Amino acid sequence: MTMDTALSYTAGAAYVGGQIVPIAQAAIPILDLGFLHSDATYDVVHVWNGRFFRLDAHLDRFERGMAKLRMSLPIDRDGIREILHECVRASGLDNAYVELICTRGMAAPGSRDPRDCVNQFYAFAVPFAWVATPEHQKRGLSVHVSSVQRIAPESVDPTVKNYHWLDLVQGLYDAYDHDAETALLSDAEGNVVEGPGFNVFAVTAGVLVTPKSGVLEGITRKTALEIGAQLGVELGLRVEERALPYGELTSASEVFVTSTAGGIMPVTTIDGRAIGAGVPGPVTQKIGAQYWAMHEDPRYSEPVD
Amino acid sequence: MTMDTALSYTAGAAYVGGQIVPIAQAAIPILDLGFLHSDATYDVVHVWNGRFFRLDAHLDRFERGMAKLRMSLPIDRDGIREILHECVRASGLDNAYVELICTRGMAAPGSRDPRDCVNQFYAFAVPFAWVATPEHQKRGLSVHVSSVQRIAPESVDPTVKNYHWLDLVQGLYDAYDHDAETALLSDAEGNVVEGPGFNVFAVTAGVLVTPKSGVLEGITRKTALEIGAQLGVELGLRVEERALPYGELTSASEVFVTSTAGGIMPVTTIDGRAIGAGVPGPVTQKIGAQYWAMHEDPRYSEPVD
Repeated sequence: MTMDTALSYTAGAAYVGGQIVPIAQAAIPILDLGFLHSDATYDVVHVWNGRFFRLDAHLDRFERGMAKLRMSLPIDRDGIREILHECVRASGLDNAYVELICTRGMAAPGSRDPRDCVNQFYAFAVPFAWVATPEHQKRGLSVHVSSVQRIAPESVDPTVKNYHWLDLVQGLYDAYDHDAETALLSDAEGNVVEGPGFNVFAVTAGVLVTPKSGVLEGITRKTALEIGAQLGVELGLRVEERALPYGELTSASEVFVTSTAGGIMPVTTIDGRAIGAGVPGPVTQKIGAQYWAMHEDPRYSEPVD
Repeated sequence: MTMDTALSYTAGAAYVGGQIVPIAQAAIPILDLGFLHSDATYDVVHVWNGRFFRLDAHLDRFERGMAKLRMSLPIDRDGIREILHECVRASGLDNAYVELICTRGMAAPGSRDPRDCVNQFYAFAVPFAWVATPEHQKRGLSVHVSSVQRIAPESVDPTVKNYHWLDLVQGLYDAYDHDAETALLSDAEGNVVEGPGFNVFAVTAGVLVTPKSGVLEGITRKTALEIGAQLGVELGLRVEERALPYGELTSASEVFVTSTAGGIMPVTTIDGRAIGAGVPGPVTQKIGAQYWAMHEDPRYSEPVD
């Protein structure tokens, strides 16, 4: 391995075309309908201090998504698991953002029939990425609730993790135009649902609430719900999955967002107004501490081979 | 050029990374957000008998889409035009499907801010593809109106040609399950809007009607509207762009779909019931004949250099 190649692996490693390659060399065929029709599902799992967090939960969701899109692969679950371990090992990263992807693949020449395609598997590991860095989390995120509506479940099933992000990206630009750092989007009824790559929670009147429908079933969301249920008595809260109207969000005592890319991240400003005391609140901090503690627990994590 | 390379160009040619390459070698970086967030706009123009059809209309729409997504390129319109000509020339194709793409590009390491990206341009020319082949058009298409809703304009602006096709692909599978060949999708109000890669027209009670909102402003749609207006008196029809309810579609005397990938294509069956006499109708055939005649007209077409 030359120094150049070794260096390039430090930026990440990918599995494409049946091989592990440095991330800078990783490319997919331009004719793959995963690109040309965004006909794909994916998942993102992270490695923290050399351990995958809740890998099985991510693989479960990935397999469910593939089945819903009527995709299948010649690689079984153990094979996928091994490829993910190989990507992380090749990258040498202790903290990594690991993405696994199934695309429709290429259509037969002249065909527009997705049933003619051979579905493809890709994966990559890159340095851990944050929606908000730990430094940023100390002051909390400033959020704008965009007028762009999240794509409806009647059009695209949000429980199939997918790349249909134009609404989220337009929401982000909308947030920048309103001097906010990121965005939350609402559904057609005006209930807040999710943001670019994260779910949302509000602490309001003794309840920890997160939107129930029209959202990705995030693994960090699931973890926060479990922690919320465990700590409920201590925190004086019950947990509810249900619609979250804008007014309830902005009048909450605490708001946080959840993502594999950053964990439990406090929101301290929404549309220019402070949430609670305008600093990360005690419920958010307790759930966040428990979340990171679980990363050492072998019930939830496994070492990179 | 080796024989292998020469052969591979006959399957098409692409412009990626600033170079013209055989289509089989054309790949995009896996980290391009055009793939990972489907953060891209594109257009498809065709070449028929060695002539581009309405290239300027396609370039106009492409540039409008880029502006709406806040993308920009270091290549100007003449540069894009030249690349498209080069792709077709390299392929040697007389009849080609030519796609031009602008993606967000790659994020800076660790950044999730689309403003940090350098937008990318890709293009390719492959053999002309048909939603329905000329042979198939003689008997007409069998269509199912799917219960999957088309992504709403409040989420993703359909006038920005985009790769958010999961609703259309699920609609296609839904159509196959209902023994139909392709699908039409409706909006939340139950009006039929468009299908996978095509607009729809109905001839009904002296009116040629096509949906006005929630649809791609197709160049073939525009051409059919222009022909309909020109031939209106002869055909005894006026042209209307407005909502098209399901009942009006299925009781129409003629239905056709329009796409760069195939032109003016008759629909003769919807949800198992014959449309009109169950064969391609006279309005569809007259508009189709005029459409193909325009391909020789220098006001609408230009030769490949």
